[in-house]
Amino acid sequence: MKTIPELQELIKSEIDQITYPSQPSNLYEPISYILSLGGKRMRPLLVLLGHQLVNGQLKNAIKPALAVEVFHNFTLMHDDIMDEAPLRRGMSTVHEKWNRTVAILSGDTMLVKAYDLLLELDPKILPEALRLFNRTAVEVCEGQQIDMDFEEKNIVLVEEYINMIRLKTAVLLGFSLEFGALMAGMPESERKVLYDLGVKMGIGFQLMDDLLDVYADQSKFGKQVGGDIISNKKTFLLIKALEQAEGDSKKELENWLDKEAFDPKEKVTAVTTIYNQLGIKEQTTDLMNHYFDEAFNLLDQLDADVEGKQILKNFAMQLMKREQ
Amino acid sequence: MKTIPELQELIKSEIDQITYPSQPSNLYEPISYILSLGGKRMRPLLVLLGHQLVNGQLKNAIKPALAVEVFHNFTLMHDDIMDEAPLRRGMSTVHEKWNRTVAILSGDTMLVKAYDLLLELDPKILPEALRLFNRTAVEVCEGQQIDMDFEEKNIVLVEEYINMIRLKTAVLLGFSLEFGALMAGMPESERKVLYDLGVKMGIGFQLMDDLLDVYADQSKFGKQVGGDIISNKKTFLLIKALEQAEGDSKKELENWLDKEAFDPKEKVTAVTTIYNQLGIKEQTTDLMNHYFDEAFNLLDQLDADVEGKQILKNFAMQLMKREQ
Repeated sequence: MKTIPELQELIKSEIDQITYPSQPSNLYEPISYILSLGGKRMRPLLVLLGHQLVNGQLKNAIKPALAVEVFHNFTLMHDDIMDEAPLRRGMSTVHEKWNRTVAILSGDTMLVKAYDLLLELDPKILPEALRLFNRTAVEVCEGQQIDMDFEEKNIVLVEEYINMIRLKTAVLLGFSLEFGALMAGMPESERKVLYDLGVKMGIGFQLMDDLLDVYADQSKFGKQVGGDIISNKKTFLLIKALEQAEGDSKKELENWLDKEAFDPKEKVTAVTTIYNQLGIKEQTTDLMNHYFDEAFNLLDQLDADVEGKQILKNFAMQLMKREQ
Repeated sequence: MKTIPELQELIKSEIDQITYPSQPSNLYEPISYILSLGGKRMRPLLVLLGHQLVNGQLKNAIKPALAVEVFHNFTLMHDDIMDEAPLRRGMSTVHEKWNRTVAILSGDTMLVKAYDLLLELDPKILPEALRLFNRTAVEVCEGQQIDMDFEEKNIVLVEEYINMIRLKTAVLLGFSLEFGALMAGMPESERKVLYDLGVKMGIGFQLMDDLLDVYADQSKFGKQVGGDIISNKKTFLLIKALEQAEGDSKKELENWLDKEAFDPKEKVTAVTTIYNQLGIKEQTTDLMNHYFDEAFNLLDQLDADVEGKQILKNFAMQLMKREQ
């Protein structure tokens, strides 16, 4: 059984070993580039943690685990085009460093390459793994489209938001855990529990992301603190604030949302003050804890290796306490 | 054994039966839209023609055949963004009718949906089919990137051009035939012949496309005749003309390529005149015939059903004589 740092090291060394053809360079260099930017590598880690719940022999699980990382980076490359994001992990995004055409095509190629890595699977589980992967991949696209649609909507309900982050973020974490367990031979009934656990954890993870965007310590945070406020992104925090603000508070919040020209720092301070008055941070933390608690309950129920369960629990605890 | 019109009818009716969820509508409506625009449906037809070379029982081959059509339309949706094309088959492109974000995401979803259709395959051949499909899909992306790279190059060699159209267009036709035959149980050695045949046919098909863009009868042609000339697209015709033009002809051709403001009709007439002086039409026809001849030779050698071979040959002949 491997610890989290050991698994992370294993994933890093495997990713470093992936090579692509040299030509056409505008197709393959962006793939190596985005994969080299690092990040938490949370998804392949979850695949291996899911696998360890049944069986510590990870040898055959590593390449398929990378499929999930390659897939995730494909979604980042395309999402960055849609969001017109200049930076990813502190570095230029692919469409900025190359151009939009390159980012579309390299992303497309990565999606195919993810399927290539799945071909490393035992043929006996290939159809089931693909079925689960495809369902998840489509849901991730649905989540991103719903998120894009939110930009045009004035009112987003909390349940609509939770459904969006479930699709855009959480189902891939659920899939990752289930996929690892599937490779290790976990029965379907237990796999479903594990999937649900991952989805709950994923919703909690995204709520933490929303929180950090406003309340992170800038010296430890990889992105600009307040970025979501500046861009009027409909996060859980904003949705709750719009729901609860009244009188002058409400007017002030709506004014900030409508303003086209403003000092970013001033807007972040003003909106954060409204969040603080309404206790939005506490409400978000409560809901996040609720989802993590549900995940921990499912983990307790799960019939799986005790040590493996403890390692997964430790990882989830890290996610709840992360600062970036 | 089914005739070409019967197969086309079968494909049309199967495509009409594909349904997608209603929400998010900005994700799924564009998929139904692009698939409803029609087109030749050449690729699923080739899958079924490849299948008929071994076995006339097409029942299980039809859904997987549609995977190739869905994949092809995914590439069209993304290529249209890159080319900033306003029209596809006489109708608005997806990024025009909706927006770029929608076209990226719907395209991504279609690629996953293509894999979903492949899951209808007999699990025994699934790994091999996916291996071939993935290789082809990546090559199609490579071809598109090389084509994009050509826009920045002053000189493109004929062999570079042929390699580009091999990747961008021809390998998918080769795959389609081989895939159909794989489903019907054709041995690998024969399948390789069939693949090569499809690739040759595909190169011939693309050369015909280049020719039609300049020499088609506008009343029968779905696009604007001369479109490639107007946009300086590096087709076989332009590459040969740049290679062979001398003196005043060369200067005139280069002037037209450099001009930013011009009367489109005047440019098309002038460049076509240069092509005519150089005998470019005849040279393109010769090379196209050469590739089709090679395809027919491979078909003659192929150990397969005689009637199936004749139907495939008839289809290839139609491609050589098409007017749109």
